Amino acid sequence: MRWDDINQQACSVARALSVVGERWTMLIIRDAFFGTRRFDQFQGNLGITRHRLSERLGKLVEAGVLVKVPYNDRPVRYEYRLTRKGLALYPVLMSLARWGDEWMDKGEGAPLEYVHQKCGHKTHATLTCSECGDPLRPQEVTPQLGPVLQAVADEREQAGESLQGIPPLFRLSM
Amino acid sequence: MRWDDINQQACSVARALSVVGERWTMLIIRDAFFGTRRFDQFQGNLGITRHRLSERLGKLVEAGVLVKVPYNDRPVRYEYRLTRKGLALYPVLMSLARWGDEWMDKGEGAPLEYVHQKCGHKTHATLTCSECGDPLRPQEVTPQLGPVLQAVADEREQAGESLQGIPPLFRLSM
Repeated sequence: MRWDDINQQACSVARALSVVGERWTMLIIRDAFFGTRRFDQFQGNLGITRHRLSERLGKLVEAGVLVKVPYNDRPVRYEYRLTRKGLALYPVLMSLARWGDEWMDKGEGAPLEYVHQKCGHKTHATLTCSECGDPLRPQEVTPQLGPVLQAVADEREQAGESLQGIPPLFRLSM
Repeated sequence: MRWDDINQQACSVARALSVVGERWTMLIIRDAFFGTRRFDQFQGNLGITRHRLSERLGKLVEAGVLVKVPYNDRPVRYEYRLTRKGLALYPVLMSLARWGDEWMDKGEGAPLEYVHQKCGHKTHATLTCSECGDPLRPQEVTPQLGPVLQAVADEREQAGESLQGIPPLFRLSM
């Protein structure tokens, strides 16, 4: 499979990575969450070439993660702001940050700490169940086919074709 | 900055991406969470070259995310299992999956659903505050320098050097 085709997989992780899985892209999004909006600021923070930055920003605009908004008329200049789709990446960003804090801190503790203004405490981003609120642990969570994949599986079964299990189903082009 | 140097940033997101930010790596980890352990299974699921897969698996072993365990004596064969450090990537994986479910589902609903065995309900992975349990929203969370970066900032201030704000501090080599 080619990387450019991973958004064709019937897998939300692969589809998400087709947007945010490039080198630098999540760092651009990190900077956007910290308030960076202008091309030169992104470039200064990241230290990547203008060409590469421009290409990455363009893809994020195309994917609807960032929106390009004019902030100056003459000459016309644009800045990049997170859309709702972009803001929805916050759990991805904070989960990466927490993993880095806990497993890649070089023994020096977290570079940044986070205060949850709503409760006033230093917080650790914690993945929990939407229904019971308990932390989600992999051994307690069972994946099952969603309605669309289940329909595909049912069709195959009725046609007497083999059910190949979940991982190969990921590769169905839906 | 070169990509290979991003683990030198004083930023946990960058450090995490230095391990899991390569193309294919998070998909390898996804497969590992779904029970894939053997080289040929990974290759069959992902459809990438043996050379690339071998390189990615090797890096994950080196980083302590996977461990190589013999499962056969003659000839000796190895399988790859998630370590505690690897299992700790579950929130990253599930946050990517949820974002893909909500924003990249092509209008067909989530390919996979997840049942939380502990409470028996279909669950959506939700990022919450470790202290009050409320969902974490970016506008309600304030980052602040951790102790090590704060010490660096204090030193600079005492030396009369300018405090450059947080994003440039990310680039300090700690």
